Amino acid sequence: MRVEFLKFAMIQEIYENYVARIKPIEEIEIIESVNASGFVCAKDIYSPQDLPGFDKSLVDGYAVNASDTKGASPNLPVLLKMAFEVRIGEKPDRTLKPGETAWIPTGGALPQGADAVVMAEHTQIFDNFVEIMKAVAVGENVMKSDEDVKAGEIVLQRNRRIRVNDIQLLLQLGITKITVYRRAKIAVISTGDEIVEPWQTPSFAQIRDSNTYTLVAWLRDLGFSVQRVGHVKDDETSLHRMLEDCVDKYDIVVIAGGSSIGTRDYTARAIERMGKPGVIYHGAMIQPGKPTVFALVGRKPILGLPGNPVSFFVSSRFLLLPVLKRLENDEDFIPRPAGLVRLTKNVPSVQGREHFVRVRVKFEKGDILAEPLFSETAHVSNIHLADGVVRIPSQVEGAYAGQLVEFYAF
Amino acid sequence: MRVEFLKFAMIQEIYENYVARIKPIEEIEIIESVNASGFVCAKDIYSPQDLPGFDKSLVDGYAVNASDTKGASPNLPVLLKMAFEVRIGEKPDRTLKPGETAWIPTGGALPQGADAVVMAEHTQIFDNFVEIMKAVAVGENVMKSDEDVKAGEIVLQRNRRIRVNDIQLLLQLGITKITVYRRAKIAVISTGDEIVEPWQTPSFAQIRDSNTYTLVAWLRDLGFSVQRVGHVKDDETSLHRMLEDCVDKYDIVVIAGGSSIGTRDYTARAIERMGKPGVIYHGAMIQPGKPTVFALVGRKPILGLPGNPVSFFVSSRFLLLPVLKRLENDEDFIPRPAGLVRLTKNVPSVQGREHFVRVRVKFEKGDILAEPLFSETAHVSNIHLADGVVRIPSQVEGAYAGQLVEFYAF
Repeated sequence: MRVEFLKFAMIQEIYENYVARIKPIEEIEIIESVNASGFVCAKDIYSPQDLPGFDKSLVDGYAVNASDTKGASPNLPVLLKMAFEVRIGEKPDRTLKPGETAWIPTGGALPQGADAVVMAEHTQIFDNFVEIMKAVAVGENVMKSDEDVKAGEIVLQRNRRIRVNDIQLLLQLGITKITVYRRAKIAVISTGDEIVEPWQTPSFAQIRDSNTYTLVAWLRDLGFSVQRVGHVKDDETSLHRMLEDCVDKYDIVVIAGGSSIGTRDYTARAIERMGKPGVIYHGAMIQPGKPTVFALVGRKPILGLPGNPVSFFVSSRFLLLPVLKRLENDEDFIPRPAGLVRLTKNVPSVQGREHFVRVRVKFEKGDILAEPLFSETAHVSNIHLADGVVRIPSQVEGAYAGQLVEFYAF
Repeated sequence: MRVEFLKFAMIQEIYENYVARIKPIEEIEIIESVNASGFVCAKDIYSPQDLPGFDKSLVDGYAVNASDTKGASPNLPVLLKMAFEVRIGEKPDRTLKPGETAWIPTGGALPQGADAVVMAEHTQIFDNFVEIMKAVAVGENVMKSDEDVKAGEIVLQRNRRIRVNDIQLLLQLGITKITVYRRAKIAVISTGDEIVEPWQTPSFAQIRDSNTYTLVAWLRDLGFSVQRVGHVKDDETSLHRMLEDCVDKYDIVVIAGGSSIGTRDYTARAIERMGKPGVIYHGAMIQPGKPTVFALVGRKPILGLPGNPVSFFVSSRFLLLPVLKRLENDEDFIPRPAGLVRLTKNVPSVQGREHFVRVRVKFEKGDILAEPLFSETAHVSNIHLADGVVRIPSQVEGAYAGQLVEFYAF
């Protein structure tokens, strides 16, 4: 029943001060590029070659010397001699002479002597001749040998998370293996005297643990190596013992629940017993998600997330995930909105806190409307009904119907 | 060199006419709810119980009979007798009598005789008494037994894709197993005479196959069961043989490349040899991604995707993915923008086609700016540099700098 007034951090302080003190993972591994999605690149990657590596036609049509097409139009076509056909994937073995043209498919290599391509729809075939009905400039419909990527150019930066579209470029350049940081190993501890397992029938006043299992499922989807190590009752000794069991085996320990007034003291004390510097912030100035504890043992993070399901959800996305990303050396760890959406109702908020309001989105004639779901943060159904949250910045008193706000998809 | 003029579909026609003709997967399986993210729910799920299942305190504070707090204020507090403490997870064994109060933690079960909770910060302890400094209304700071979910209420609908936030609700209700449709089995065939494997060194005029490997990586990330079955040269017989090999083993066959003017005839012929109705649309009125072939053998889809890397990327997200989702019975298969973004430059487009323009996004003081990347659709680097695409609808001639447009993240 002791009510302490403790140190709360603005969300920016957490991103700037707390996250900066974490020791990122140093171990690297070499993996197949096709499996690299979600890993963080550990070395700058330079292109070993020009791309495409040869002057390439961008269309199906006729390779020409642009000067031969001067003045060509549908009314006054230029007649060029059909000399040969370029075959895709093969080096043209003949050179185009003045007055000649050659059929070239999309992706075909431009023959020597040609410097442009006329699209098929601007041509007409007459026996061994091709009518060119449109003048082309030098380089028209051609991709130069080094136009896409130049040899030696940096194609992927260290400390960037690898996306599927990066993989496409790596494979195109023949980079089939890549050096990455290993993924973070996360321990999740469930706490709370009222908690039973999802497959158990709670007696009166008990509830099932959905938080930690959902957290594990979500983090696993994101590719993290995550383990729910177990459940402990609400007491300092049990929690401290569990922390001791896992602090060396994992890169981060996440304690679910145990950060409300009634329990945060023992959570803080159990953490403090693990070593210095201990608890850095006792909470965050966000709503929901405020009772989130940020601690360090040495430079290893321990986070206490609120037990309230909505707070837990918001806290895991806006506070835990940035920490996990930074652990993995990802420079781009601050949550980014997916886009802007238009509020359908006024949303009040308290200055000094970031508010994250659950919304349902509706798509209407190019506009995206966000309907705030006002309900208790203790409602689980509320998260299930929401498509995401909108952010009401800490400097404002609220947001109005019709206003554009940042949307973060679930 | 034969140039045919073929049937192209508006993107809406594909979503409405083509997708509707596909036979969705009927086989169901029962899986653990924690692993259900990404699967499509095969049966409506009803709640077996009320949630939370008991009247629950939403705060740390004092359980009271609201009428006892009438008129209470910091200047004129009401004094109530401290009767007992509610312990979290336990059914209160005593009843609150008039003039009494009981400590209750967040999540604690309201004792008989209490109908509201006063937050700890509005109280003061005096020996065995508690000063109540704020009047509360009946139900204040209390979540009613069936307020979150009512027994018998539908909590997850058939033919909806399951998200992590749905899992949280299922587990909270003790629904640890769930009936889902099995995931779609996808065959990916690589085509093209110019194509070599990513680990091979292309000779002049050849390029590596990045498309199919990237597609497989992406679809696997999304949880699909996908196989790159192999590569065939640009001829009808080889492709037909490969199609025969896989059409019965997979729910859908995706042919990569082979839909440009030079190759689309043999792709179409190879597909037509598989059976009726064959090719439905020879292309889509989108840019990039136009040369996408939509076919059916019976009610089984075969898609031909363009070989151009940017076209391939857009086509796979806006044309292939909806087909895959619908195959899995997902009712919500039409791509939805992540949000709105503001263009930094004018973007021209051709009426009658949906344009998808690659953009980089920048975050500036609550606004989200999208800088169009104008470059050849044949550039692989362009996809790697982009954060996503914006959509320019088919009815307009373009979009202007400063205008809000729909953003689809990569």
